[in-house]
Amino acid sequence: MENDNKIVLESTSRNGKGVGEGYKAWLRYPPLNLNQAKEYASWCGEIVIAASEPSAVLKNACEELANGIGSMLGTAPQIGGSGKLPRFLRITTGDLAELQGAMETAELEELGEEGYVLKTVREPGREYIAIAGRTDRGALYGAFHFLRLMQTGQSVNDLSVIEKPAAKLRMIDHWDNMDGSIERGYAGQSIFYRNGKFIMDRKRIRDYARMMAAVGLNAISINNVNVHETETRLITPELLPSAAAAADIFREYGVRLFLSVNFASPIPCGGLTTADPLDSGVRRFWAERAADVYRHIPDFGGFLVKADSEFQPGPFTYGRDHADGANMLAEALRLYGGIVIWRCFVYDCLQDWRDRKTDRARAAYDHFRPLDGKFADNVVLQIKNGPMDFQVREPASPLFGGLRQTNQILELQITQEYTGQQTHLCFLVPQWKEVLDFDTYASGEGSTVAKAATGELFDRPLGGIAGVSNIGDDSNWTGHLLAQANYYGYGRLIWRPELTAEQIADEWVRITFGLDPVVVATICRMLLDSWIIYEKYTSPLGVGWMVNPGHHYGPNVDGYEYSKWGTYHYADCRGVGVDRTVKTGTGYTGQYHDEVAARFEAIESCPDELLLFFHHVPYTHVLKSGKTVIQHIYDTHFEGAEQADKLVDAWRGLQGKIDEARYESALSRLQEQSKHAKEWRDVVNSYFLRKSGIDDEQGRTIY
Amino acid sequence: MENDNKIVLESTSRNGKGVGEGYKAWLRYPPLNLNQAKEYASWCGEIVIAASEPSAVLKNACEELANGIGSMLGTAPQIGGSGKLPRFLRITTGDLAELQGAMETAELEELGEEGYVLKTVREPGREYIAIAGRTDRGALYGAFHFLRLMQTGQSVNDLSVIEKPAAKLRMIDHWDNMDGSIERGYAGQSIFYRNGKFIMDRKRIRDYARMMAAVGLNAISINNVNVHETETRLITPELLPSAAAAADIFREYGVRLFLSVNFASPIPCGGLTTADPLDSGVRRFWAERAADVYRHIPDFGGFLVKADSEFQPGPFTYGRDHADGANMLAEALRLYGGIVIWRCFVYDCLQDWRDRKTDRARAAYDHFRPLDGKFADNVVLQIKNGPMDFQVREPASPLFGGLRQTNQILELQITQEYTGQQTHLCFLVPQWKEVLDFDTYASGEGSTVAKAATGELFDRPLGGIAGVSNIGDDSNWTGHLLAQANYYGYGRLIWRPELTAEQIADEWVRITFGLDPVVVATICRMLLDSWIIYEKYTSPLGVGWMVNPGHHYGPNVDGYEYSKWGTYHYADCRGVGVDRTVKTGTGYTGQYHDEVAARFEAIESCPDELLLFFHHVPYTHVLKSGKTVIQHIYDTHFEGAEQADKLVDAWRGLQGKIDEARYESALSRLQEQSKHAKEWRDVVNSYFLRKSGIDDEQGRTIY
Repeated sequence: MENDNKIVLESTSRNGKGVGEGYKAWLRYPPLNLNQAKEYASWCGEIVIAASEPSAVLKNACEELANGIGSMLGTAPQIGGSGKLPRFLRITTGDLAELQGAMETAELEELGEEGYVLKTVREPGREYIAIAGRTDRGALYGAFHFLRLMQTGQSVNDLSVIEKPAAKLRMIDHWDNMDGSIERGYAGQSIFYRNGKFIMDRKRIRDYARMMAAVGLNAISINNVNVHETETRLITPELLPSAAAAADIFREYGVRLFLSVNFASPIPCGGLTTADPLDSGVRRFWAERAADVYRHIPDFGGFLVKADSEFQPGPFTYGRDHADGANMLAEALRLYGGIVIWRCFVYDCLQDWRDRKTDRARAAYDHFRPLDGKFADNVVLQIKNGPMDFQVREPASPLFGGLRQTNQILELQITQEYTGQQTHLCFLVPQWKEVLDFDTYASGEGSTVAKAATGELFDRPLGGIAGVSNIGDDSNWTGHLLAQANYYGYGRLIWRPELTAEQIADEWVRITFGLDPVVVATICRMLLDSWIIYEKYTSPLGVGWMVNPGHHYGPNVDGYEYSKWGTYHYADCRGVGVDRTVKTGTGYTGQYHDEVAARFEAIESCPDELLLFFHHVPYTHVLKSGKTVIQHIYDTHFEGAEQADKLVDAWRGLQGKIDEARYESALSRLQEQSKHAKEWRDVVNSYFLRKSGIDDEQGRTIY
Repeated sequence: MENDNKIVLESTSRNGKGVGEGYKAWLRYPPLNLNQAKEYASWCGEIVIAASEPSAVLKNACEELANGIGSMLGTAPQIGGSGKLPRFLRITTGDLAELQGAMETAELEELGEEGYVLKTVREPGREYIAIAGRTDRGALYGAFHFLRLMQTGQSVNDLSVIEKPAAKLRMIDHWDNMDGSIERGYAGQSIFYRNGKFIMDRKRIRDYARMMAAVGLNAISINNVNVHETETRLITPELLPSAAAAADIFREYGVRLFLSVNFASPIPCGGLTTADPLDSGVRRFWAERAADVYRHIPDFGGFLVKADSEFQPGPFTYGRDHADGANMLAEALRLYGGIVIWRCFVYDCLQDWRDRKTDRARAAYDHFRPLDGKFADNVVLQIKNGPMDFQVREPASPLFGGLRQTNQILELQITQEYTGQQTHLCFLVPQWKEVLDFDTYASGEGSTVAKAATGELFDRPLGGIAGVSNIGDDSNWTGHLLAQANYYGYGRLIWRPELTAEQIADEWVRITFGLDPVVVATICRMLLDSWIIYEKYTSPLGVGWMVNPGHHYGPNVDGYEYSKWGTYHYADCRGVGVDRTVKTGTGYTGQYHDEVAARFEAIESCPDELLLFFHHVPYTHVLKSGKTVIQHIYDTHFEGAEQADKLVDAWRGLQGKIDEARYESALSRLQEQSKHAKEWRDVVNSYFLRKSGIDDEQGRTIY
């Protein structure tokens, strides 16, 4: 949950705010070794711009190329010449007629607004690498792709790349508050705000926009979905000029600005007594706000709305439904091409723990499935990956398969709220891939969440993916240096969901730490193992919620057991887990399409890792692994803590191969993780030993 | 614990700050009915002052008499006449020669500084009631006693009362911070401070001083024992004038001012690099501070110190012991007659929950017993009633029987930290009586804690009792109106420990709500049952700590189970409780003298209500009551919640017999208690049913 955050954890990060290697993230461009450099240098002496009046976006693409190449090769290319050298780079936008011979026409035609081509073109008397897009933004992404090839040491002699993003909307949601705090932020304070005002550190925001563009992100919401008093005024003339100044920076890197809005704004900002979406005064209020916003930010993306959720206001207050609320805002934005992103994170957060019939997991589907088809075309429903709330392990939300006539986007959490808060290493790309690849069977086999979210599945006009930012003003952006991989990986994955976690990890490590094979292999292994390690010593078999309330850090098996948040595991002396079956439980499994429902409904076919999410079983239940549930709990907790220890050893093996500042910074986090993993191990094991009375088969120490 | 208070509860009290009947507390003086009034009127037409130059204290005594009598009888007495009426009141101080005929001389001689006589003297031609003390303070207490007789409707025609307090130091500790917050305060904000400064609401402080004097309290510490940055400067010339202004008000009601000090003060306030008690610069610093303090407050009481406890600084930092630390401060104060009150609440608050050998209950005794005899004569050790921390039920601290050559005072908690936070009704006098009457056997049978604390047991020069205040700026002082009874009862009990809880309750109810027998009987019953009711639905058999961490409100059975605070119940599927025996446990029972140790050591003789404090037993263990432990848990929780419900009914029966504002104010608390008692019942019962797997014999609903 998002606003149960009364305890503020001391950030374990006290990195200085200076600019170090950590700050440069994936835009470091360190000098390359001679062999690589020679090949690249033969192409990079000159950048030809095949555009008469280059836009700011295109200029930024050229500048990034020039700076990156200059930094990696030691000499900067000439820009804007006419191709006097025998080999050069050529940035092209528009109809790309020149490439018609070199590429298949159909491919070129389907490039779309953001796709690009990297093509090594050989003509008599000259050779060049075309970095080409139908638009300047396409060319910008192509430029970053070209730089990435150099950063990862790949040949560019025979390029023939065509790429376009899988999803239209590739968004980052910042849960930043204007007082400078970040809800669920673990990397310092906001890079945007302090003490109720914009900071306007243009350098930092521009660097951040570069980082976003480098991984293909094209949208950002800059304030918390829990919209407090100050942030409510972001859509008023008082604060719009500052928001517009931020939008100006992002725009030049292809990123559109969104704002989270308070559904009740008409009352504090409009002097109205109601925020009823059917009230004409309210509609006028929002129309005027939209006009104001677009006056300041002509390409404004739209509103992000958390309504009727965790004490946020919404249409329920007025007896209206979510469609009434969302469509009213959509109407106000439609004229300007704006959209409404309406979150589906709606559930009863004042549940009575005694009530075993109400199931929070059902809530999003129960609320929004009946409204399918009722939302305007410029409304998008934003659906969290799982039915609960960003736990270590959840099944994919059944809502993805449940909406056929409604735009939808998938919401992922890059910031590590329940996954170690950037003190523990937890590379989330493998988790996200499972979500994207999850087959909803909504339209037969192959109806993946990825296809549902991008709109491909039911041919929706809008779609995409949003991720909650893990960025703060710590010098390395993410607190834990290795947590940069989550942001980087998020961007790369949602651009091209078919990339494997291994590919993404490999790419990030090379860019971030260089090409030393020991370094690459070691860190890749650490990243790729980390989610499962974290799962092992924390949350067994999909059970979830065994964390300290409020701040969500550290073990507390009964922490949410007798709470109002709808988050229970029902552990007793005989067994544990939530019966969500249709036959004997809450009926949640029935929200999936038949193929999926059947798999989760039967204990025999339910995957081990989600067993306790779907079933209440005795501790002596034997898993597919051959182990009992209780022995699985013990074994995974011992293993997980041991593996967390080994992460430290693995990292220590890299001493001397990584600059000291970054080495030490990550080491201290890994050491803290290793210590804290033992606390997890001992608390969870002790809890279940005390509760079950069943000894560990291996007789290890449990307290 | 005191500083694990990260969550700030919303105060459930939002009483207005105006002056109502609640504000007047036990100084209401409502008009009396005709019969009573006639008798009192015959004596109260005139107050003769037998003192040539009445002090401020004596003037206040006369003023209180005049106002109280005037208010109760409708006509104010003449003051300062010479006894022209046939009957009158006569306030006398000094050698009391005039009473030598009427009283036994020995009794008069032993009155001491604070004792008093109320004597109806009949002489030829005149009759008067003597209100007499050797000092003005004695007379002040006598005046309040006289008023109390009128308030409770007792005859004054034949008075022959001699009283003196059992304890020299009768103190109130305020845990108020200068930002206005109160640690463990449940009645609004501080009456002394706001935003880092003294408020100096002289009227309110004077009223408070009157309330203190009315129940015989003579000392107050006005700042939190956790001394933060601002409060550290209370002993500097910057803040001393304000403290002195408060002291001036209290002084005129016989109350001496104390301050809590930060042991590390020499560093922030003295520019030193050390606070080592053996360092000459440090000793000089404290000597200078003492000189400063006494320049501003000539009768300053002394320093209250929480050292080496819950992250407060102390002598351990410098390799010194508590005696070194306390004696150093004592030396600075000795010249001026000041004392050091050194708290014994010292334990390892970073304990590893896995470590079952370390027992927090042992800590105070283990730390201070070896230092017996090493403390200066003007040092007093302040010992919490129990070995843990103000739980609903604890045995008395063994340290009371352990110190023979050391001054000690007993610390009680009037504010209801673990006992319902002034939302639940919990009249604590019965609990305190158990503590005071607890026989330590330190010097044979009859060596009660009361005698140890007052100094009587080993003839110590200093002794007394301190209570942590439940006072805040809510209009009725204590949030829950009926929580006034705790403050009132505290004062009355420590003045005269032989008073019964019934007597005190009866007295308070009459003074507060009048003499209607239904009102008196109903509220007395509510008060007297309330502690046991609260114990029933919260904490069975002495187990303790089953509360939410931090704020300590509401049920959380495992809340402190895996924590660093040394607070565990070790519940598993077979049993529950802490083995503190010498034979198989932590050895804590061995800290008591043989008679007590034997009683607690053996399960057979250990009283049921403390069983789980001393022993780990199976749920099927049969109590002296004939019930099993598990059935006792179920039964008491069902009973307690039901009884909490009945408190509401009882109170409702008084509608119309109590003014509406006070009726409604208490009703809303009682209703909240009743609701919350069910949450306690259900959480605790569900926890133990799930853990033990043993069904309730009566088949009631447990979740």
